[in-house]
Amino acid sequence: MMELGFAEIDFDRKKRRGFGETLFGRGKTCQQLYRLFESFEINKEPVLATRCSKEQYQYLKDKGLKIIYDEVSSTIVNNYAMPKISNTNSFIAVCTGGTADVPVAEEAVKTAEFFGASVKKFYDVGIAGIHRLFNRIEEIKKADVIIAVAGMEGALAGVIAGLVESPVIAVPTSVGYGASFNGIAPLLTMLNSCAEGVSVVNIDNGFGAGYNAAQIFRKIHKGEK
Amino acid sequence: MMELGFAEIDFDRKKRRGFGETLFGRGKTCQQLYRLFESFEINKEPVLATRCSKEQYQYLKDKGLKIIYDEVSSTIVNNYAMPKISNTNSFIAVCTGGTADVPVAEEAVKTAEFFGASVKKFYDVGIAGIHRLFNRIEEIKKADVIIAVAGMEGALAGVIAGLVESPVIAVPTSVGYGASFNGIAPLLTMLNSCAEGVSVVNIDNGFGAGYNAAQIFRKIHKGEK
Amino acid sequence: MMELGFAEIDFDRKKRRGFGETLFGRGKTCQQLYRLFESFEINKEPVLATRCSKEQYQYLKDKGLKIIYDEVSSTIVNNYAMPKISNTNSFIAVCTGGTADVPVAEEAVKTAEFFGASVKKFYDVGIAGIHRLFNRIEEIKKADVIIAVAGMEGALAGVIAGLVESPVIAVPTSVGYGASFNGIAPLLTMLNSCAEGVSVVNIDNGFGAGYNAAQIFRKIHKGEK
Amino acid sequence: MMELGFAEIDFDRKKRRGFGETLFGRGKTCQQLYRLFESFEINKEPVLATRCSKEQYQYLKDKGLKIIYDEVSSTIVNNYAMPKISNTNSFIAVCTGGTADVPVAEEAVKTAEFFGASVKKFYDVGIAGIHRLFNRIEEIKKADVIIAVAGMEGALAGVIAGLVESPVIAVPTSVGYGASFNGIAPLLTMLNSCAEGVSVVNIDNGFGAGYNAAQIFRKIHKGEK
Amino acid sequence: MMELGFAEIDFDRKKRRGFGETLFGRGKTCQQLYRLFESFEINKEPVLATRCSKEQYQYLKDKGLKIIYDEVSSTIVNNYAMPKISNTNSFIAVCTGGTADVPVAEEAVKTAEFFGASVKKFYDVGIAGIHRLFNRIEEIKKADVIIAVAGMEGALAGVIAGLVESPVIAVPTSVGYGASFNGIAPLLTMLNSCAEGVSVVNIDNGFGAGYNAAQIFRKIHKGEK
Amino acid sequence: MMELGFAEIDFDRKKRRGFGETLFGRGKTCQQLYRLFESFEINKEPVLATRCSKEQYQYLKDKGLKIIYDEVSSTIVNNYAMPKISNTNSFIAVCTGGTADVPVAEEAVKTAEFFGASVKKFYDVGIAGIHRLFNRIEEIKKADVIIAVAGMEGALAGVIAGLVESPVIAVPTSVGYGASFNGIAPLLTMLNSCAEGVSVVNIDNGFGAGYNAAQIFRKIHKGEK
Amino acid sequence: MMELGFAEIDFDRKKRRGFGETLFGRGKTCQQLYRLFESFEINKEPVLATRCSKEQYQYLKDKGLKIIYDEVSSTIVNNYAMPKISNTNSFIAVCTGGTADVPVAEEAVKTAEFFGASVKKFYDVGIAGIHRLFNRIEEIKKADVIIAVAGMEGALAGVIAGLVESPVIAVPTSVGYGASFNGIAPLLTMLNSCAEGVSVVNIDNGFGAGYNAAQIFRKIHKGEK
Amino acid sequence: MMELGFAEIDFDRKKRRGFGETLFGRGKTCQQLYRLFESFEINKEPVLATRCSKEQYQYLKDKGLKIIYDEVSSTIVNNYAMPKISNTNSFIAVCTGGTADVPVAEEAVKTAEFFGASVKKFYDVGIAGIHRLFNRIEEIKKADVIIAVAGMEGALAGVIAGLVESPVIAVPTSVGYGASFNGIAPLLTMLNSCAEGVSVVNIDNGFGAGYNAAQIFRKIHKGEK
Repeated sequence: MMELGFAEIDFDRKKRRGFGETLFGRGKTCQQLYRLFESFEINKEPVLATRCSKEQYQYLKDKGLKIIYDEVSSTIVNNYAMPKISNTNSFIAVCTGGTADVPVAEEAVKTAEFFGASVKKFYDVGIAGIHRLFNRIEEIKKADVIIAVAGMEGALAGVIAGLVESPVIAVPTSVGYGASFNGIAPLLTMLNSCAEGVSVVNIDNGFGAGYNAAQIFRKIHKGEK
Repeated sequence: MMELGFAEIDFDRKKRRGFGETLFGRGKTCQQLYRLFESFEINKEPVLATRCSKEQYQYLKDKGLKIIYDEVSSTIVNNYAMPKISNTNSFIAVCTGGTADVPVAEEAVKTAEFFGASVKKFYDVGIAGIHRLFNRIEEIKKADVIIAVAGMEGALAGVIAGLVESPVIAVPTSVGYGASFNGIAPLLTMLNSCAEGVSVVNIDNGFGAGYNAAQIFRKIHKGEK
Repeated sequence: MMELGFAEIDFDRKKRRGFGETLFGRGKTCQQLYRLFESFEINKEPVLATRCSKEQYQYLKDKGLKIIYDEVSSTIVNNYAMPKISNTNSFIAVCTGGTADVPVAEEAVKTAEFFGASVKKFYDVGIAGIHRLFNRIEEIKKADVIIAVAGMEGALAGVIAGLVESPVIAVPTSVGYGASFNGIAPLLTMLNSCAEGVSVVNIDNGFGAGYNAAQIFRKIHKGEK
Repeated sequence: MMELGFAEIDFDRKKRRGFGETLFGRGKTCQQLYRLFESFEINKEPVLATRCSKEQYQYLKDKGLKIIYDEVSSTIVNNYAMPKISNTNSFIAVCTGGTADVPVAEEAVKTAEFFGASVKKFYDVGIAGIHRLFNRIEEIKKADVIIAVAGMEGALAGVIAGLVESPVIAVPTSVGYGASFNGIAPLLTMLNSCAEGVSVVNIDNGFGAGYNAAQIFRKIHKGEK
Repeated sequence: MMELGFAEIDFDRKKRRGFGETLFGRGKTCQQLYRLFESFEINKEPVLATRCSKEQYQYLKDKGLKIIYDEVSSTIVNNYAMPKISNTNSFIAVCTGGTADVPVAEEAVKTAEFFGASVKKFYDVGIAGIHRLFNRIEEIKKADVIIAVAGMEGALAGVIAGLVESPVIAVPTSVGYGASFNGIAPLLTMLNSCAEGVSVVNIDNGFGAGYNAAQIFRKIHKGEK
Repeated sequence: MMELGFAEIDFDRKKRRGFGETLFGRGKTCQQLYRLFESFEINKEPVLATRCSKEQYQYLKDKGLKIIYDEVSSTIVNNYAMPKISNTNSFIAVCTGGTADVPVAEEAVKTAEFFGASVKKFYDVGIAGIHRLFNRIEEIKKADVIIAVAGMEGALAGVIAGLVESPVIAVPTSVGYGASFNGIAPLLTMLNSCAEGVSVVNIDNGFGAGYNAAQIFRKIHKGEK
Repeated sequence: MMELGFAEIDFDRKKRRGFGETLFGRGKTCQQLYRLFESFEINKEPVLATRCSKEQYQYLKDKGLKIIYDEVSSTIVNNYAMPKISNTNSFIAVCTGGTADVPVAEEAVKTAEFFGASVKKFYDVGIAGIHRLFNRIEEIKKADVIIAVAGMEGALAGVIAGLVESPVIAVPTSVGYGASFNGIAPLLTMLNSCAEGVSVVNIDNGFGAGYNAAQIFRKIHKGEK
Repeated sequence: MMELGFAEIDFDRKKRRGFGETLFGRGKTCQQLYRLFESFEINKEPVLATRCSKEQYQYLKDKGLKIIYDEVSSTIVNNYAMPKISNTNSFIAVCTGGTADVPVAEEAVKTAEFFGASVKKFYDVGIAGIHRLFNRIEEIKKADVIIAVAGMEGALAGVIAGLVESPVIAVPTSVGYGASFNGIAPLLTMLNSCAEGVSVVNIDNGFGAGYNAAQIFRKIHKGEK
């Protein structure tokens, strides 16, 4: 373990829990973030940072760090990503109700990929035009795990769960206005899903869903090459 | 107008608003209810009472009133029901997500029929098994107005609205437990419906939905015979 | 159907549901909005966009699109609006409690008109000075459907519903402060309306009310010329 | 002051604040209530107890106390009521939206009368049938203070306040179901009243409204005979 | 009545309800506000506008209107204020818990004075240092009506009401942080006041309290000169 | 599919989704429940009913059905349970914070076992005495999936997730009083878990957690014998 | 540690944390409670059980256990209570707003005494009649720690804290009705206390306050004899 | 006492309650703050101001005041701090869950130190990596009082309380997003703590926790030198 004054970094974590380290960028100063990334660089360990602004990325890059920034998901990864789990056909399906849910979905995608999982995207398949979902449901059914990202009424997770065999991780988003109450409406919808097989993470928590899906994905494929 | 001491009855209402009088049974004593029904009997005017217990019904019947009680919807009507609007094919579709939503749905049915509308029932078509809805959607599409009654996640209204041309009146029910919060979850779901064409009434308010649907039905068919 | 990468547009929708396509402008980039409008232009299909900023409009106009922007309602329409339903006297009445509710009311007006309905406006008829409502109630009574837009206490919908025969679609607004809780107060008032015939849409959802009213209006006047 | 072990009674209160003592009956044992009434009997001081059950009353009566029980308002008074303020024409108007609000209204009536004020009742004048209110508004306007008791949407207080010159004390009631949330809906409505001159007391707090109205009534008529 | 397009002004109001007209400045454009003030100028009628910004005031002044702006209370009045009720010793007491509650209290003061009432101020007498209240309570007791303005825990209203004979109008403020929830905490405290004689207005609604207090004050002193 | 009048049973479900049918017992009449179980008996299909009372069980048993009732979990199963997945060492760990959480945990256990999964129980390992959890954590780490059931503060899920590699399904319970608000407190705790790998189901929803865990368990062990 | 099947008892706890064991009686069967008390009897260790019904007590007594039941606080203790801390003058002050708060206060008293602390009671000193508090404040000031128990508006804690030097532990109670929302109102009041030195425990949690106060009391007097 | 027009300063407070004066900087103008600090300067009395911006500090410094600003905690103190309580080994432990909780924790630290207490910091010991807490728990156990500052799930307070003998003051923070609802989630967690010995202050109220801890610390060490 390494003491930075404002945080302790745990380089054994990857071994202990089988996963790399992740950081929550929002609320950290550029300098704090730099010192964290620098220590991972020195230890040649993979790290994923979520909720990072363009400014934070620019600062790190200007300091000479080798990092990749994804603007839609607001994530940064360094060069020591975890190896891809060697399975060609299996995947995690990441679905969204609408276009506005995409940033949260992409956070899930980047997170799952960081931990070595394969992902396929099924965006804009919300239930307002249910034929869009039905056009793609056969492919979605093949996924090991499904992440359903939706705001406003949030019914997507339940509709998908009623059609598939795999577990569904639901992510309510703060997309919407008025009585969506910044994501409370889809959160409640998802917790009350009539279809079995739905579990829920925090509002806008694409990271949590991606992590959870990757855990399951790795469990299913452990021992494979 | 007639003054009973605890309430004023308005026999001109039917003429003024084009509708018969209705009563809310819950919280009224048997005697109060009797005096109200008696005054309608004397004036030969139709009346519908909702949220009536078996005990209230028994008291009225024992007093010699000619009334009909429906146990599932907890409604009582007298003998002076409004005439059926003479239209053979048009109808209001009343749909429920599950079996537990039926009492609320039946309150809507009895109310709409009291005001002369035709009704068809589509029960247990909730989205947990969406094929059940799809088996019947072609018939539902033919309705002038659709009432969608659902508890728990309450997604039924939005899914139907995305598939039809007619207006959908959504009724959240207090069916469920935990984070359904006695109907708050489906209420929010329905208010946030992504599909256009959904409007919402109070939790468990089958009466309100039936009344509203009958208003629209009568507007569409006024002038017909 | 047409795939744009970030959204799928459904040009059959107008035929399938009998209505033109609508877009939610807020949260979309200027470029995304442009590509959407452009594809409607190419297909010569009508489109209505709500919650659009002046900046979004300016971008689209600068790109050469033939569109009309209404600043009060924040709506954009293109040149392919749906034909007016040919009925001279019937109309939808759009009422507001106060001046601050007008932008939401205008969203309802523009939406209903986009779908071919006729609209009359009754603004600033809130119950704080109920004589203002009573001066105009005879005209409001002639409407096929009534949209009641009100914030703060939101009692307008119930008062109107108690005086008319037509269905009332209530729109709570986020106008107010303190215990109005951004529209929760009028939302609850409207859901609990004692007068029959009120159904409710989301807070500030003028679009939803306009769409719903147009659906009913079209149902009533279908077959007319 | 007198110490009873479980409570301290303050016989100077009437002088200090100009008002008699009141008790909250609910949650007190019959014996506790008896000892409290007994000590007022001994001191020949007036007392009003609210929220008292029939059982509590029966116990006190069986013990030989000279008291009067009013079943609708659930109040008990002893024989030492405060003298009537000698004013023939002035009065407090107590209005209710519906029949179910009457018990709360009667608590207000009994309380105001206990403190010597004159009261007139205007029951079942809710806004669902606003002509009932208008039939009586000229008389209501003559009141010094108005108490408006209403559940469900609770719009009565605001409508009256918009029509009169006198202050309106609004009492939300827990009457209703679903999204009335046991009185939260009318509470918010009343707090957000667009009409000036409305202040609000706790849900079902007829006592508080009656007390407050009597305070104002006494202020206005002090010095009169 | 005068129709301005966006609002109807009611010059008979002062006569009908015995009070001058008031405006809510927030959300109105400078031009709208100007046209409203101009019409009062033309009719030589008094008007009070609350929640007005310095910018709105500057615009009106630049247009040549004779108005007075009070920055603390954010109010504007014109030159036609209502005459002072001719009573030398009586007054409304306006109390605040802390310094941060002063803007709301001043809105109450300006409103009450606009309607001709006399006011005395008792600021920073909150219960955290209850000796400050006790130093001034004898003077407060002499008031006809008391306005208690407090945020955070909001206990001031109840403590005062337990010590005085006059009615207390409580104004919760949005001052505070965390679990004050923008004024919900003091609002609930005030609604649940154990001391009799407290009624409550909306969060930050100094205007409502001032109006209500002036109504009572005028009732008490009507007929006096 | 089979139509019973009040419900449609779907015997293809097990094939379609790879799972047997389940019923929600609460709110169903004894007769309705009997007819449902009877139809499964006729089709020789497995069924699990949750939230069943002793009375419901007795009725079914008296009618001659071969069923097993578990009183702690309130579940009934018939004789056609799904075959055990043939894996000796793997298991789902079901943990509870306290004794009062056991009924919800047992619902999860019976559900997971019904679908062929192996389960080990770790009860009363709540964080108030964290040594109890640490005594058993090495065994818990071996689980494929962990179900953490906890009421009151609900911190168990997050503490476990911070120590293990497997996914954690968190079940908040309504155990507690006061500010636990019938399970809202642990629900929010679990949704906000700082440790990665936690997803959440509805309050008291042991069934949902058991189903979800069994889905994942079956995915991991599919292909094994 | 001792394993009972449904719970683990920790006889080292008293040593480890310096405190005896406590049990939460509600929700435990008589038999479970008996087995727990029996094991403490065998180990000659002190135990305090809170929220116990008369039935639970009777069962334990009939089984021959030597226990003391206090009906007001619903607590049971056995014969092995912790020794009194030998300090004659110091004490914990337990204050209540009203009579209805006494059961919660007594739970605090019994708990503090079980852990060896001295307690003095100051009941019915609520702020509605603040002279009652002032009559006793000099004595309250002498306490090492103060527990303030209050429902409804809950202002007692803040008023006391503004007058004393010692820490105040506030206990909101569910006493009240309407907008007290079962204790939310006093909980928020206490959390927002303007006076410094107030910390808060769960609604009705007399036990928690008594335990916390005893902890502080023991810290202050440790080393004394 | 000294009257400044907008506030009354109480220089006897330190004597009366045994503590120096504190100010809440947010919402005060630079000039108001200056006049307050100036009067303390003149009286040579210690003062602590919390929630002060850099701008406020700069203004005071430019005016020539001798003050110290701490940017992390946003506090200002003058030169007349209270003397350190002369005890070398005892201390208050201030713990945080994560880095983002540090500003609130530092407010507690500066407050406790202002009142003469000794403090040790244990930052970033949240339960997501519980080994970090366990590495330091033996030192934490030695504290007289523990302050546990945590956002998101807020479980830190309960976990620590289960391991120590000393009282724990819990401070929920508004750190987090989505269903943390600006600190409601950790507030509820802390109020529902299963471990005994936890009391709670307002969200982000580091000041209140520091004050309360210092009160207890001073009680324990009074009489020591």
